[in-house]
Amino acid sequence: MAAAAQLVRGAARAARGPPALAVAAAAGRRALGSAPPRVAAGRGGRRAALAAAGALGGLALGLWRRQAAMAASEEEEEGDEEEELRQRFMAPPVSGLRELRRRRRELRSRMELLIMETQAEVCRALAALDPGAAFAVDTWERKEGGGGISCVLQDGEVFEKAGVNVSVVFGLLSEEAARQMRSRGKSLKAKDGKLPFCAMGVSSVIHPKNPHVPTMHFNYRYFEIEEADGTKQWWFGGGTDLTPTYLNEEDAVHFHKTLKEACDKHDLKLYPKYKKWCDDYFYIKHRGERRGIGGIFFDDVDSPSKEEVFQFVKSCAKAVVPCYIPIVKRHCHDSFTPEEKLWQQLRRGRYVEFNLVYDRGTKFGLLTPGSRIESILMSLPLTARWEYMHTPPESSKEAEILEVLRNPKDWVH
Amino acid sequence: MAAAAQLVRGAARAARGPPALAVAAAAGRRALGSAPPRVAAGRGGRRAALAAAGALGGLALGLWRRQAAMAASEEEEEGDEEEELRQRFMAPPVSGLRELRRRRRELRSRMELLIMETQAEVCRALAALDPGAAFAVDTWERKEGGGGISCVLQDGEVFEKAGVNVSVVFGLLSEEAARQMRSRGKSLKAKDGKLPFCAMGVSSVIHPKNPHVPTMHFNYRYFEIEEADGTKQWWFGGGTDLTPTYLNEEDAVHFHKTLKEACDKHDLKLYPKYKKWCDDYFYIKHRGERRGIGGIFFDDVDSPSKEEVFQFVKSCAKAVVPCYIPIVKRHCHDSFTPEEKLWQQLRRGRYVEFNLVYDRGTKFGLLTPGSRIESILMSLPLTARWEYMHTPPESSKEAEILEVLRNPKDWVH
Repeated sequence: MAAAAQLVRGAARAARGPPALAVAAAAGRRALGSAPPRVAAGRGGRRAALAAAGALGGLALGLWRRQAAMAASEEEEEGDEEEELRQRFMAPPVSGLRELRRRRRELRSRMELLIMETQAEVCRALAALDPGAAFAVDTWERKEGGGGISCVLQDGEVFEKAGVNVSVVFGLLSEEAARQMRSRGKSLKAKDGKLPFCAMGVSSVIHPKNPHVPTMHFNYRYFEIEEADGTKQWWFGGGTDLTPTYLNEEDAVHFHKTLKEACDKHDLKLYPKYKKWCDDYFYIKHRGERRGIGGIFFDDVDSPSKEEVFQFVKSCAKAVVPCYIPIVKRHCHDSFTPEEKLWQQLRRGRYVEFNLVYDRGTKFGLLTPGSRIESILMSLPLTARWEYMHTPPESSKEAEILEVLRNPKDWVH
Repeated sequence: MAAAAQLVRGAARAARGPPALAVAAAAGRRALGSAPPRVAAGRGGRRAALAAAGALGGLALGLWRRQAAMAASEEEEEGDEEEELRQRFMAPPVSGLRELRRRRRELRSRMELLIMETQAEVCRALAALDPGAAFAVDTWERKEGGGGISCVLQDGEVFEKAGVNVSVVFGLLSEEAARQMRSRGKSLKAKDGKLPFCAMGVSSVIHPKNPHVPTMHFNYRYFEIEEADGTKQWWFGGGTDLTPTYLNEEDAVHFHKTLKEACDKHDLKLYPKYKKWCDDYFYIKHRGERRGIGGIFFDDVDSPSKEEVFQFVKSCAKAVVPCYIPIVKRHCHDSFTPEEKLWQQLRRGRYVEFNLVYDRGTKFGLLTPGSRIESILMSLPLTARWEYMHTPPESSKEAEILEVLRNPKDWVH
């Protein structure tokens, strides 16, 4: 699994401007076996970036062809492309920019561009708030088909750990595995028992240092499976949710209102439905608590039409920065006590419990051969704490958030 | 579930002598809803202890009758019993001392006494090494039948978190649930679809502060299921294993040698078989690492005879203190660097991953209605850490332990 992945890594400082792109090829290096050197961003890094883009290509699995290494005669075009990559993304897209351009009308290409842009947009916004810290950018390949780009900022001034991950994977699924991927379990007809599939998404967890700044998670994903007769099944999933250490009603309302506005542009029924789905999904059953104060969550959505669902997902992805960044700005310089930091650490423990015991994506990832464990577990906080029988005093601020986690509230009507 | 449990709590200081017993009745209090007051150990606590023993009784489910509140005329006997409880145990046994005496020849009674004694022995040995810290003792009931005693020392000088838990539960199981309890899945014939069962065990996880003192876990358990025709199926399970932050060969050899000696008294085949079972069981598949350097592990053991297996389990339980305590003594005053503490925290993260993702006992507990979550998750460390892509340098002490976790060694021959 990990041994098969080739890792390309660099560090991109993305403060106040387009994310600089700098990745260094590390061909043949094992993803988990040894730590490749970080390469500082800057002019010198660009050539390495292009070498990396070339190294990523050549995985043709009948679904998508990846961009081959560029010929010397294409140097001018190469320069433009390099500039565009630098401006728009954290690293070259898995499918290659040219391929995405060539197939620009296909939804798959549009979705890949959306997740790449979302990754860059969020990294840029976070880095602007934590100027001393840099995102480490890892570009990795999956032997079975596809790859991904993991951007992680660790131990910054504002963020304890912030990860924004893109993955675009494809290949062949067994009928059983394909059924498991669809939560509603529709039947799928395979040719020779195998189904070509493509799965892509952007996912992120942001754990800030200050206990008055909440943790935020989002994930937007798209699946395609081709049946024996050539018809394609497709669906979208995703969501954005907030996990505060302390309840701040103004923040909760802002967060939910921004998500509601994104939903309402498409259908007034969406926000109430997906808000409830979120409260139901992020439930730590053994604690009788939700992981946070919710947001929206949906899965297996394939109606009314591919275009309409994509436009809805696009609105949600575009809402990530406006629903979260103002909250970070408002509180990242708030003073806090050691007791408040301790309560944050205990809540981080619950976050770990949810992700390792219940989260479908994490569980699926841990059990799937070829998945990149470091990208899956990037969602875990830098630090967490478990105290035996910890119970906050009645009417405390700690009891206030627990009450909301036990009995979810409606924040906007 | 938790709402049904009645909690009785006290604090017992068990340094250098028999564990003092002091539990305070907290009838009607919710186990997780509020923190009952800790009651300091001492003479004043004894009356409370007896009131608690009475409060625990009265749950007769056709299997075991629990000791009723003592009549005034039995005051002298009461005094003796109180003294015996104080000397031998951390709290009154779930089944009541008189009941255990009355049924002293039954294996169930002997096993309950063994797990109670093991709990007290281990708590006493740990408290003697951490004189400033006290064990909180919680006695809890399970609505569906039975209860337990959880002893937890937290944030001491030597131990970050040390929990030693006894549980004795009984009631009725569905055929399906009964089958799931047996790892080998033997068929069981129920009367009216239900099977009377009894499950008891002692389990413990000790997380020390100093990164040169390893974490230790042990668990010894006994199950009984009664079939429709009155025949009883029974089996034992258990094990003791060590999780060092850094490898110390002398400690590893001492630990395994002590366990081997306990096994060898019964059958020379046991240690090699259960050592391998331990390496196989404590495997963090997604990391390709074992949780620690192993020890012994066995489950579903019902031969050669009940008496012989009990004697073997007794030897293992008696080996806990001699296999671990000398290692704690040897290293608890070792100096350590912040980097060593950090590596310990990262290893604690892996401990959490194993326990929440793979451990059968934890998963079974989290999914079982009526189980006491705080006692199950007492195994989690006080603090843990996850760093993205952390890889120790080649030939470092950190790489040395990783190598052993990836490729288990034989420590004794």
